[in-house]
Amino acid sequence: MSETVLISELPWTDYEKRLAKGRTPVLLPVGALEQHGPHLPLNCDTVIPLAVCEAVAKRIGALVAPPLEYGYKSQPRSGGGNHFPGTTSLDGNTLVLMTRDIIREFGRHGVRKMAIVVGHTENLMFTTEACDLALRDLKAQGITDMKLIHLGYWEFMTEPTIGKVFPDGFPSWNLEHAGVMETSVMLYLRKNLVDFGQVPKHPPADFPPYDIHPVDPHRIPSSGALSSGQTATAEKGKYMFDEYVETIAEALKKEFAL
Amino acid sequence: MSETVLISELPWTDYEKRLAKGRTPVLLPVGALEQHGPHLPLNCDTVIPLAVCEAVAKRIGALVAPPLEYGYKSQPRSGGGNHFPGTTSLDGNTLVLMTRDIIREFGRHGVRKMAIVVGHTENLMFTTEACDLALRDLKAQGITDMKLIHLGYWEFMTEPTIGKVFPDGFPSWNLEHAGVMETSVMLYLRKNLVDFGQVPKHPPADFPPYDIHPVDPHRIPSSGALSSGQTATAEKGKYMFDEYVETIAEALKKEFAL
Amino acid sequence: MSETVLISELPWTDYEKRLAKGRTPVLLPVGALEQHGPHLPLNCDTVIPLAVCEAVAKRIGALVAPPLEYGYKSQPRSGGGNHFPGTTSLDGNTLVLMTRDIIREFGRHGVRKMAIVVGHTENLMFTTEACDLALRDLKAQGITDMKLIHLGYWEFMTEPTIGKVFPDGFPSWNLEHAGVMETSVMLYLRKNLVDFGQVPKHPPADFPPYDIHPVDPHRIPSSGALSSGQTATAEKGKYMFDEYVETIAEALKKEFAL
Amino acid sequence: MSETVLISELPWTDYEKRLAKGRTPVLLPVGALEQHGPHLPLNCDTVIPLAVCEAVAKRIGALVAPPLEYGYKSQPRSGGGNHFPGTTSLDGNTLVLMTRDIIREFGRHGVRKMAIVVGHTENLMFTTEACDLALRDLKAQGITDMKLIHLGYWEFMTEPTIGKVFPDGFPSWNLEHAGVMETSVMLYLRKNLVDFGQVPKHPPADFPPYDIHPVDPHRIPSSGALSSGQTATAEKGKYMFDEYVETIAEALKKEFAL
Amino acid sequence: MSETVLISELPWTDYEKRLAKGRTPVLLPVGALEQHGPHLPLNCDTVIPLAVCEAVAKRIGALVAPPLEYGYKSQPRSGGGNHFPGTTSLDGNTLVLMTRDIIREFGRHGVRKMAIVVGHTENLMFTTEACDLALRDLKAQGITDMKLIHLGYWEFMTEPTIGKVFPDGFPSWNLEHAGVMETSVMLYLRKNLVDFGQVPKHPPADFPPYDIHPVDPHRIPSSGALSSGQTATAEKGKYMFDEYVETIAEALKKEFAL
Amino acid sequence: MSETVLISELPWTDYEKRLAKGRTPVLLPVGALEQHGPHLPLNCDTVIPLAVCEAVAKRIGALVAPPLEYGYKSQPRSGGGNHFPGTTSLDGNTLVLMTRDIIREFGRHGVRKMAIVVGHTENLMFTTEACDLALRDLKAQGITDMKLIHLGYWEFMTEPTIGKVFPDGFPSWNLEHAGVMETSVMLYLRKNLVDFGQVPKHPPADFPPYDIHPVDPHRIPSSGALSSGQTATAEKGKYMFDEYVETIAEALKKEFAL
Repeated sequence: MSETVLISELPWTDYEKRLAKGRTPVLLPVGALEQHGPHLPLNCDTVIPLAVCEAVAKRIGALVAPPLEYGYKSQPRSGGGNHFPGTTSLDGNTLVLMTRDIIREFGRHGVRKMAIVVGHTENLMFTTEACDLALRDLKAQGITDMKLIHLGYWEFMTEPTIGKVFPDGFPSWNLEHAGVMETSVMLYLRKNLVDFGQVPKHPPADFPPYDIHPVDPHRIPSSGALSSGQTATAEKGKYMFDEYVETIAEALKKEFAL
Repeated sequence: MSETVLISELPWTDYEKRLAKGRTPVLLPVGALEQHGPHLPLNCDTVIPLAVCEAVAKRIGALVAPPLEYGYKSQPRSGGGNHFPGTTSLDGNTLVLMTRDIIREFGRHGVRKMAIVVGHTENLMFTTEACDLALRDLKAQGITDMKLIHLGYWEFMTEPTIGKVFPDGFPSWNLEHAGVMETSVMLYLRKNLVDFGQVPKHPPADFPPYDIHPVDPHRIPSSGALSSGQTATAEKGKYMFDEYVETIAEALKKEFAL
Repeated sequence: MSETVLISELPWTDYEKRLAKGRTPVLLPVGALEQHGPHLPLNCDTVIPLAVCEAVAKRIGALVAPPLEYGYKSQPRSGGGNHFPGTTSLDGNTLVLMTRDIIREFGRHGVRKMAIVVGHTENLMFTTEACDLALRDLKAQGITDMKLIHLGYWEFMTEPTIGKVFPDGFPSWNLEHAGVMETSVMLYLRKNLVDFGQVPKHPPADFPPYDIHPVDPHRIPSSGALSSGQTATAEKGKYMFDEYVETIAEALKKEFAL
Repeated sequence: MSETVLISELPWTDYEKRLAKGRTPVLLPVGALEQHGPHLPLNCDTVIPLAVCEAVAKRIGALVAPPLEYGYKSQPRSGGGNHFPGTTSLDGNTLVLMTRDIIREFGRHGVRKMAIVVGHTENLMFTTEACDLALRDLKAQGITDMKLIHLGYWEFMTEPTIGKVFPDGFPSWNLEHAGVMETSVMLYLRKNLVDFGQVPKHPPADFPPYDIHPVDPHRIPSSGALSSGQTATAEKGKYMFDEYVETIAEALKKEFAL
Repeated sequence: MSETVLISELPWTDYEKRLAKGRTPVLLPVGALEQHGPHLPLNCDTVIPLAVCEAVAKRIGALVAPPLEYGYKSQPRSGGGNHFPGTTSLDGNTLVLMTRDIIREFGRHGVRKMAIVVGHTENLMFTTEACDLALRDLKAQGITDMKLIHLGYWEFMTEPTIGKVFPDGFPSWNLEHAGVMETSVMLYLRKNLVDFGQVPKHPPADFPPYDIHPVDPHRIPSSGALSSGQTATAEKGKYMFDEYVETIAEALKKEFAL
Repeated sequence: MSETVLISELPWTDYEKRLAKGRTPVLLPVGALEQHGPHLPLNCDTVIPLAVCEAVAKRIGALVAPPLEYGYKSQPRSGGGNHFPGTTSLDGNTLVLMTRDIIREFGRHGVRKMAIVVGHTENLMFTTEACDLALRDLKAQGITDMKLIHLGYWEFMTEPTIGKVFPDGFPSWNLEHAGVMETSVMLYLRKNLVDFGQVPKHPPADFPPYDIHPVDPHRIPSSGALSSGQTATAEKGKYMFDEYVETIAEALKKEFAL
């Protein structure tokens, strides 16, 4: 039987054995196809949580479902806005239904421990709603013991690491869009997809505390990045990535009693 | 003609005059019916943004639409969770459709400047989606010049005020649920609805960086408050409220070219 | 503990006590934001059922949920039509989902007796559908003992009262839009919001027995009222209001075995 | 070319000619499958409006679309309630979408004059919503000149006829469910489907002015009829039917400028 | 009690008896209003499955529900495309909800054996989805023993019959749109609605193995038929019809243990 | 600028250049997570169309969007049924919305030529509906020149190739589920994921011409494959794959005037 943790690569017969009657957790990465400046590919928000899930799964004996590669609409203050070419987003309801359906199906297979690992800030409330609706639907079908852990991977970075990676001060997770963290982790994970020479050098974006609809592109850095990834390195990326994996693995082991 | 800024209190004939062919902004408060500890009423998230809207409207010559008094499901880390009695929430899609429909209708009246003033963190992404869908629908009907400002009122508190109100350190907006800020502002606005003797004294809630579905009530302060409002006063409330009104009024004047 | 019957004004702890393990009924007013001629405010269809609910609740020991202040689209023959400025309406599905969600949530709290008190004719079939869907959903979650009473408050006026209030003949409930009944009750409840000098004097609207889409505004009284409220008085308003309260309270006591 | 007015019986080539570039009106009967007492078949609410449409179409040169044979849920006070075997109903949203889609498609064909001829009281608000949504969608596709007439056929009975058919007093349209009118018209149209010996003899149902969810079958006449059709005759049926046809034909000729 | 198998023609009391506590199967024809060339009426896809259902019902003691006369959008390669006048189609979701609602309602009546008899290729996946959703919903309401047979009637033609009816080779079911089979069966069932002189004589349509959106009408036979019905006869129609009835009746007897 | 054809691997700036103002086609693979017997991984229906898209894109200068890795529910006669562990499917409406949203977004970017390349039979009608709805929505936003090609890749295999690959007779595309074609192409594309020793040896499944809901697993080969892939080879896989690529590339060049 293959050692892969990717459900997609298993025959159903192996998948069934690996499920171990529902004792095995399933991790679902929920990403996006979203611009990340001129230096990072559009798939950052999928690549990172998928890699996190794979590494976590190896540690804790979990399986990884195929990632959702399209997410909710990019917002100016956390992703630059949905007007950029390449950013390819779903209506909120679509993302809710998509995630709900998938959770329900794993529940039908017998899975009882799932982690929804979000890679794109704008997804969070819609995947939260999906968790709620999936549990409601499962209950209506007689399944009442599914446990879901819902998380944004970046929230697992510890304060010491933030201090280390951002010695000159941490702007905010929102402004980190295509900034030091994502650039570093992508340098570590998929160096060939990073065009470091294109990293923008502009200061962090400065937003008022509100949003404007329709978006006004002139108020957003034309690069699409909300802060500069100039100080990013693959080493920082590895450091952060390893911490994500370790802290998420610990959390899931505790919550899933592994 | 009545001096009220509340649309609901105007006859349609006065409303039409007050609209001034769409030059007048309309402010829509979007609240919730959500537990706020044993000392605050369930309507905090509606009362505060409604009061902010009324005061802002008086300053800038705007009108205020009836508030939405039911919001999205309370989340443990920002509202204690949706399992408390009294917390009465909508599915995400319902809140989206509700807000979208209302924006569309004001667009039909000729309104071209609207502010969506959110009083409940959990609403934000769903009201964001509503803004996007409303503009899409309006465009399909030939209306392309609607401008929407979407905000959470608490985001307008300035750093100096945070320093002043939280001299011992600001926990976070999420942990402020039913804490010093909301208690203070409610003491200022609706003292009769605050039972100060019931303010919880427990330390701020301590959450891991993820959510669990279904919610585990034992991990949440049994009071429903996420931090203590013991140091709240009506004076602080007035101070913060006035700042909200002033900063939001300024923002809207600028954005709406008033 | 506060004496208010408004759920929104209670802390959740008091609300829970007042629920008395589901023995206490909850009343949900479902109104509209709809033009009511040049003399009445846009909120008539919310103000009246809310006031009825409050008075009924005091009599029978019930609680009142925050009203829905937006309703289904105004129809020419019962509300003048949806084309008037100020009339701000929901798609039918939105009103259904909104009402359904709220009933479901009260069911989750343990409420088992609810009255849906409609103040706007056009809502009735959509709130009816909401009752049906809410019970279906509750059943799927294992709650099978919720009882809902669904009513339009005006239907509780007795024949003798109709004779008294309309000595020259009762046109019809539909033509009563912004007419003697609503004007009288608003004079009684919210005199300051009635501009009696603006009461239209035109004869009742005369409609063919069908509707036209899109609406033809020229066939509808330009005032928005469908009959004249010239003979309205606060005394008549009190008389009718008291009868609504008494007859609805009696009905709910009987149905809810109070 | 066939003389039929039924669109379903025409080849598309004849249909196209008969449309006359959109000058020809299309009539859409919207019925139900609903119990009508032990003496009438379940299809009364479809058979009658379909026959009305056919007769009207012949008079005014219109075409008739296939009827919708399933309608909205029967209500106790107008149809006995949805709990009877045989009554087979749609969710409100389903009926809205169904009717909306059909109107949109006729709009795509070039039809610009449509009448929605409802045979089931409970449909009315949902078909109203469908008219509104269809026009909105057509507008978004660039079609702005569709005119819809929406009607319940029974509302075209004149006062003199009511006096003649109900010499002892007219109960109400709602109580007429499976009563004198429907029994008479069915005797005229489909005598073979009427089992006159089974006509209930009980007095009209007596309802309080509210509805109860879930329905309480014991409060509803066990026959399913809300009043007695004992005095029904085929002659009365013909008289009423002819009047429906004549008055509706006149209304459509006027509205459609035929 | 009437001998009809049409539910619509029964009073509810007879229907209830005929249901025999759920032992009686109910057959639901799902058709379309779709162009079928210049020689066949728009209702072929409804007339044929309805006639099949009636004949099958008589054989096996089943009942027939009113047919759905509107179906999913005609596709170029199986129905010529949805751009023809007369073709009047539903959105996929509408057809799903419609069919789902009806199955649910029969489940509520106590029916436990249903056949969904499709007459229009394009419906198949949407009625399949409806079956799945209806069973899910029924389960949530506690009904777990409904059995549904879902079929397209034409799939019951045996290979020998295909050889006999198409001695020169069978094109494909898709190209049979308005071809020999449908023309023959309509000649047998509703000769008066067939204009045999208009049968197109063009060769079968030749399509590439993909679809184009929006449809390009120039690539589709302008007649709307995808092959020629020139060799159709009523005798062939009877032969095929009888085989449909016999084979479907056998299948249902077996599956429903009749 | 990277030579990749995968949109996900491009920064938005490169993507924009590569779009060439909409002259570049975008290919969207729509797959599934579905059991394919004990010898093939769950991702066959995604891997194959993705590989086809990449190869086609390189030939014709197109770009490839991230694949949809979850599809519509597996059906017994074409995929073995949705009851197998591992098969993880979407409701029909979810797949429609997902695909519609993505097409709309590419339309917003300026893309005017898209191919929807389906790898899972059961998706076809839902992706068809998505094409129709996306074009409708785009039109409502003023975009009327999008051209979509919708295809199932296997339909591009030519008759000669079928004769060559299936010398003993071609069962049918439906029975080819996890049979010779898919096994061969997977052997060619992802040999490491094929466990050839597990290829079932049973004869092709034998289905009646109808479906049963709920599915009866006993009527379906317990392997999940519908025919045997014993004669599959990587060479056959390459042959077929190359033909898919060539014929699809030719079709797109012609349709998109490349």
